[in-house]
Amino acid sequence: MSEILEMAKRARAASLELALCPTAKKNAALLKLAGLIRSRAEEIKAANAKDVEAARNLISAPMLERLSLNDKKIAAMAEGVEQVASLGDPVGEIIESSVRPNGMRIDKVRVPIGVIGIVYESRPNVTVDCAALCLKSGNASILRGGSECFQTNSALAEIVAESLSSAGINPASSQMMPTTDRSAFGELLKLDEYVQCIIPRGGEKLIRFVVENSSIPVIKHYKGVCTVYADKSADAGMAESLVVNAKCQRPSVCNAAENLIVHRDAAERLLPVLAAALSKRGVEIRASARCAGILKNAGISFLPASEEDFSTEYSDLIISVDIVDSVADAADFINRYGSAHSDLIITSDPNAAEEFLDKTDSSTVYWNASTRFTDGFEFGFGAEIGISTDKLHARGPMGLKELCSYKYKVYGNGQTRE
Amino acid sequence: MSEILEMAKRARAASLELALCPTAKKNAALLKLAGLIRSRAEEIKAANAKDVEAARNLISAPMLERLSLNDKKIAAMAEGVEQVASLGDPVGEIIESSVRPNGMRIDKVRVPIGVIGIVYESRPNVTVDCAALCLKSGNASILRGGSECFQTNSALAEIVAESLSSAGINPASSQMMPTTDRSAFGELLKLDEYVQCIIPRGGEKLIRFVVENSSIPVIKHYKGVCTVYADKSADAGMAESLVVNAKCQRPSVCNAAENLIVHRDAAERLLPVLAAALSKRGVEIRASARCAGILKNAGISFLPASEEDFSTEYSDLIISVDIVDSVADAADFINRYGSAHSDLIITSDPNAAEEFLDKTDSSTVYWNASTRFTDGFEFGFGAEIGISTDKLHARGPMGLKELCSYKYKVYGNGQTRE
Repeated sequence: MSEILEMAKRARAASLELALCPTAKKNAALLKLAGLIRSRAEEIKAANAKDVEAARNLISAPMLERLSLNDKKIAAMAEGVEQVASLGDPVGEIIESSVRPNGMRIDKVRVPIGVIGIVYESRPNVTVDCAALCLKSGNASILRGGSECFQTNSALAEIVAESLSSAGINPASSQMMPTTDRSAFGELLKLDEYVQCIIPRGGEKLIRFVVENSSIPVIKHYKGVCTVYADKSADAGMAESLVVNAKCQRPSVCNAAENLIVHRDAAERLLPVLAAALSKRGVEIRASARCAGILKNAGISFLPASEEDFSTEYSDLIISVDIVDSVADAADFINRYGSAHSDLIITSDPNAAEEFLDKTDSSTVYWNASTRFTDGFEFGFGAEIGISTDKLHARGPMGLKELCSYKYKVYGNGQTRE
Repeated sequence: MSEILEMAKRARAASLELALCPTAKKNAALLKLAGLIRSRAEEIKAANAKDVEAARNLISAPMLERLSLNDKKIAAMAEGVEQVASLGDPVGEIIESSVRPNGMRIDKVRVPIGVIGIVYESRPNVTVDCAALCLKSGNASILRGGSECFQTNSALAEIVAESLSSAGINPASSQMMPTTDRSAFGELLKLDEYVQCIIPRGGEKLIRFVVENSSIPVIKHYKGVCTVYADKSADAGMAESLVVNAKCQRPSVCNAAENLIVHRDAAERLLPVLAAALSKRGVEIRASARCAGILKNAGISFLPASEEDFSTEYSDLIISVDIVDSVADAADFINRYGSAHSDLIITSDPNAAEEFLDKTDSSTVYWNASTRFTDGFEFGFGAEIGISTDKLHARGPMGLKELCSYKYKVYGNGQTRE
């Protein structure tokens, strides 16, 4: 039997035990994990130094920065695990209950998904985050980080396993893939008998590979192309503050804005103000032909936008700008070019707002609040394993509840079907 | 552009309109559909007669029976559609709402999934059922029935389109695949940009093909291998009534029992009674070596069971029988051999019952009630599009709510993220 199959079978067996594990035991493992991350910081940093050294000339500076651990990042990892320990346990909650005319009671009860495979790149804190979130939600996890992070992840996986064992939990409840070979990974993606869910976190190419090769259900988002729409009646001050926050507060993340569209009746009034505010903050403006005259008149420099620009995730200080004719056209624009992640209307007209919120087919739609709030912590979930732009299972930020399934428990006293 | 791609694009566009369609309009289309099914019964039967004639020497007698329509089946189709019209509209319900410390209100609102592809075999009533359920839940549907049913399905699809148009709904909201070619079907399974969900209904081979070839998320159950477990303290009369109901009331369906397992301490007491009751109803007993002595002593005839028998869906009057040592072993047996569909413990011991309900990793777990109740109608959903044994999205019977996703609508007054 292959090493990967063996691993998946061990994970499946562990998941059946873990699904019934009391909260206190899971929390004990989490607190132990936080403690070990702190007490073994030097060991973790030493492993990380090997990865950083080997990757130095192979990956970009921002990637190297993401890969590198320091005391502050290690402390944040430990705190993150403690926070997961402090959250409520989602498992076992009765979501709904009904009594049928024949007297049967049907309880819909939250249960873990089972075994979750998580595939990610670079950042080693993801290893610890995902192990902790899966554990708290009663799921066994199989973790597959990037090859450039293998030493660090191995050190962290060892600490996770020790934490589980010390709390009396089967260490196979959280396993790291023994190799970063793509063929081993491809093998994992076919083991739907043992693994119930794959969550890929990373670039579009990685996610596309998973979707095309997995026979296991996948929860994902490809990218974050978020749009800010300033409606006819948008307040200029609020619009400026929201578009600047959505674009500039942290341009590299998936809930940052990539597009700005403005209602034609407000274009003369708003475009110069908004474009100037963005330019002032170093944002490159890429404008459609329709915006050109207004921007030129206002003396704002810009580049022409291609159609492709409107569906591009820049993750940088660049924004594409266009004019639309109506709320419906704004929603159409987003449904065509966006990635169904997070989109915003700025308006003082409640009817326009509701029309936009209804017609825009995105996971999260905002009226007068920044797209940057799409986040499990900001939504009050206490944690986040990722964002889904899928329609099935979970949509938007995914917390502990979204890492769960349910089962029906039916209580009878001999009922048979006629 | 290929015909299939064109169709998927039209479905996607129609789904965006349909998601916002008022309930009354959807109901008007459904009632029109029911009326047309009745008034055009002769036309439907004529199309069906062609299919039946062509299939007569190619498919088995039970398949031919499934394929054949008569007045009674056509009336039942129309009634089914009227029932769907009478159900509540799941779309637009606020599932949860919270106000964040910064004053933002976050509403989690039920919305349709989008475009759902449904793939099925033989029975033409599925065409109408699925079109109706998708319409009521605001989803566009692409239907792909079996080639042996193409004439009948085409006639029904025409009637569906006419009903939609007459209510002012885009007829692209429910489309039938223009061909039953496997290559066209394979093409559909890759159109994840336009189609959000595939529901295959049919044999294990069809479902496996879909899982291995789809880049669109799939909701499914492969088969129904359901087990009845008679515990130590099971009442003999109740056990007899339940196992007979679960096995014999309709042996061809997925929630019928295929396995009977008995606690060792109750084997002498229960096995002869239960096996005799089943034998009397013409059920073939396939027993493990461990049961052989007891059955022989009781003078009950049986065949030896192979290990494979315990994971076989007979869909017939056959049952596999074994003895287990404990409640935990019963759950292990089911987790190993079953299909995570519906499993039952018969016991008068509440602790044993809860242990079984917790440890058995199935969609629906019963205490003292027949597995035959796993059904959207019996669960009070008013309808059913299928059963899921998956862990993601929906598990167990799927009604209108399970045909929906959700979106977050966030209401602010200028909130930005620090």
